[in-house]
Amino acid sequence: MKDKQQNTLIIGAGLCGSLLALRMGQRGYNVNVYEMRPDLRKTDISAGRSINLAFSDRGNKGMKLVGIEEKVKALCIPMNGRMLHDRQGNTFLSNYSGRDHEYINSISRGGLNALLLDEAEKHKNVSIHFNKKCLSVDFENTTARFQDYETKDEFIEDADCIIATDGAGSALRRSYYLERKFLFSFSQDYLTHGYKELTILPTENGDYKTYKNALHIWPRGDFMVIALPNLDGSFTVTLFLSYDEGEYNFNNLSTPEIVTEFFQKEFPDALELMPNLVEDFFENPTAPLGTVKCSPWHYKGNTLLMGDSAHAIVPFYGQGMNASFEDVVEFDSILNKYEGDLSSGKAGWETIFSEYEKTRKKDTDAIADLAIDNFHEMKDHVGQVIFQEKRKIEMALEKEYPEDYSSKYSLVTFNEHIGYREAMLRGRAQDKAILNMLSDGIISTEDDIKDILDKVKTETEAILEDDRIAGLD
Amino acid sequence: MKDKQQNTLIIGAGLCGSLLALRMGQRGYNVNVYEMRPDLRKTDISAGRSINLAFSDRGNKGMKLVGIEEKVKALCIPMNGRMLHDRQGNTFLSNYSGRDHEYINSISRGGLNALLLDEAEKHKNVSIHFNKKCLSVDFENTTARFQDYETKDEFIEDADCIIATDGAGSALRRSYYLERKFLFSFSQDYLTHGYKELTILPTENGDYKTYKNALHIWPRGDFMVIALPNLDGSFTVTLFLSYDEGEYNFNNLSTPEIVTEFFQKEFPDALELMPNLVEDFFENPTAPLGTVKCSPWHYKGNTLLMGDSAHAIVPFYGQGMNASFEDVVEFDSILNKYEGDLSSGKAGWETIFSEYEKTRKKDTDAIADLAIDNFHEMKDHVGQVIFQEKRKIEMALEKEYPEDYSSKYSLVTFNEHIGYREAMLRGRAQDKAILNMLSDGIISTEDDIKDILDKVKTETEAILEDDRIAGLD
Repeated sequence: MKDKQQNTLIIGAGLCGSLLALRMGQRGYNVNVYEMRPDLRKTDISAGRSINLAFSDRGNKGMKLVGIEEKVKALCIPMNGRMLHDRQGNTFLSNYSGRDHEYINSISRGGLNALLLDEAEKHKNVSIHFNKKCLSVDFENTTARFQDYETKDEFIEDADCIIATDGAGSALRRSYYLERKFLFSFSQDYLTHGYKELTILPTENGDYKTYKNALHIWPRGDFMVIALPNLDGSFTVTLFLSYDEGEYNFNNLSTPEIVTEFFQKEFPDALELMPNLVEDFFENPTAPLGTVKCSPWHYKGNTLLMGDSAHAIVPFYGQGMNASFEDVVEFDSILNKYEGDLSSGKAGWETIFSEYEKTRKKDTDAIADLAIDNFHEMKDHVGQVIFQEKRKIEMALEKEYPEDYSSKYSLVTFNEHIGYREAMLRGRAQDKAILNMLSDGIISTEDDIKDILDKVKTETEAILEDDRIAGLD
Repeated sequence: MKDKQQNTLIIGAGLCGSLLALRMGQRGYNVNVYEMRPDLRKTDISAGRSINLAFSDRGNKGMKLVGIEEKVKALCIPMNGRMLHDRQGNTFLSNYSGRDHEYINSISRGGLNALLLDEAEKHKNVSIHFNKKCLSVDFENTTARFQDYETKDEFIEDADCIIATDGAGSALRRSYYLERKFLFSFSQDYLTHGYKELTILPTENGDYKTYKNALHIWPRGDFMVIALPNLDGSFTVTLFLSYDEGEYNFNNLSTPEIVTEFFQKEFPDALELMPNLVEDFFENPTAPLGTVKCSPWHYKGNTLLMGDSAHAIVPFYGQGMNASFEDVVEFDSILNKYEGDLSSGKAGWETIFSEYEKTRKKDTDAIADLAIDNFHEMKDHVGQVIFQEKRKIEMALEKEYPEDYSSKYSLVTFNEHIGYREAMLRGRAQDKAILNMLSDGIISTEDDIKDILDKVKTETEAILEDDRIAGLD
């Protein structure tokens, strides 16, 4: 079992890196993880400021893999649907699925990360080193250069293989790009919009100020606010807004008066829940929304990108963390396939890294595109009658024929047995079928639901077939 | 006319930069052009080694704009179609259009560039400085740093505005990317294939060894060879081949024997024309095929990217140079619109740069995607019966109804009055309509051509409308 003594170096102990470390630890590898930030379990993070994330079925596959599903469940707040808020403060709950058992969860990034670190450190063969920033990676020699934040000392670590889970600003990816030793395809794409986090604090009794079990959305066409619940009774609120377009934008929201005016006009019911709005607004940073794609993800068998370092996406499908956890699951299944060959020397890490990218990249490309789609859908489509009719029909289909129909959202979020790419192709074809049949009067929201199901299925297949013949799939 | 004395600095005196310098010179601006290479008019370029390019109607708009259409025509060799060569050496001429007056041209890059430089230098207000390499651009202060190749001295030039036409490896684009002073969306995407140039020399009498007025193609599924004629009787030949996939690839074509074997097996008739093959193969570099997209193209009113620096594309649609010339035409028309305001101070360069990107980028994005499409089409589709039937129908439609039908190729290449994006959307819809109606038996190559025209038009409109309703256009 010579390879079990191989040293695996992981850069970054965020959500992806700590799950990967845990899993590689379980498999018996020697694992060293280097993280640039301090240990978040020992750092005081003030209540209500922690970022939360949407956690759903694909992410849960990772938790099942390492056997901590129940522990994670204790950190979750189920969100059954979107609670839509209009300008008058009216609310409308739109379920995520017509099937009652399908919902997503709000989870604290810090709480989940701490759990994964705890579980990883239970393995003697896993060591996690904090406050060590990766400066660059020598991917020819499988070494990485770090700087200790406290002593400022620089040092070099070598390993048998290096996996970078160091997020959208990955040091390994930067080395791939800047060294120009091979053809590295790379893209960074920013939206016109940025985001800023705000907070709805709990009541004095520690209760939730608004309905707990939903993802709240205040959609306003060109911008929006969302809110996800935290365990302490607070909500983390995010404003998505253009940097410089429209009447109000991040560039011109420059005084307390204009910020208050903007919320008064657009989000009066949210403003009521946020007496702390102005303080939060000017204390918290405005951050960009970017998509990163690249290829190859690996260099020979020496180094590999995983998680956001390989495929950072915008948050509009709530799949960023879930996609990274699914990366670990996919990587693990390829390890299963080749581990015997790896131990015996018949296969190297290159075989594994190469097959991992080949099977995985089509799916992470798809979720990146789906997340951009959803940005535009939320901006432009949410208020259009035809899209509302489509949603109504889909909810009815999922309720009446739970085994026969899943919307694009359900395919992406709750059908973890199929890949993102298949979910995208089928989901887009279904959307096109329903929208066009509504537009052409072939179906209507009043029709018999079985009749609609048959027509949607037939038309979806026809669309997929037409694209296949034209070479567009 | 204060702005006429504005100093415009152009980085790069290639095809785009020299046309831009000429046009800006004609308009009366003070223009300084800095080019990193020596003056190509004074450098000996050995016969048969010069690169040639496809020159067509969009590029010709630029020549008309500056009044040198006739001079350029003298450099052109018309290519009426593709001469396809199979493995047995059989040839088949496939016209580019069913309309006789529509053809493309082979032109020498060096010859055309020299003409543009000569014309630009006729203007006293235009100065071209060779052997000056741009190292970086300070886009906050509108200055550029150069190095003189001969003296190695570095110097800084300032200007009222800087336009970078310095190609795919643009120094200005690199400064945008590395400085991180604003959100810069950027992508570089490489194909799995690279290319290598070879030569078919003239006969001893200086005649062409094969048919002159065609673009010769030896399509072989996963790789191909093409050849374009030069005025001196030679052809410039390009081999497109994977770096590392397939039985033969650039990585394993490492000895004279294996290169000869490869050509003997795949391109026997081309090998006969190239006794110099092995020498060329090992002397000439293998180069990658990349697409570059980015945004924004400008920083305030200080600096602007144009041509390949803003949008480098792969060569499979023969539109790279044409797109860059069309850039100059589009930029010029926006200058026409705002020049009064620019002179009076009512508008600045920022207004012009911003509107230029807004109107132009959708079209250069489209030709980049079309060029990638064609790479796959040439590899995968060229041998399929259904695609051959489509081509046959389209040629008949263009011949019988020259006013009513243009294929995607014709829309892109010969319909210079519409943009690339419109050509792409309509062309793709037409392709999809014809392929699906062929597949479903709704049309066949034996049908009445008027009947086919009506069906194709109706189905194309339906496809465009369906995409519009689904929000996919």
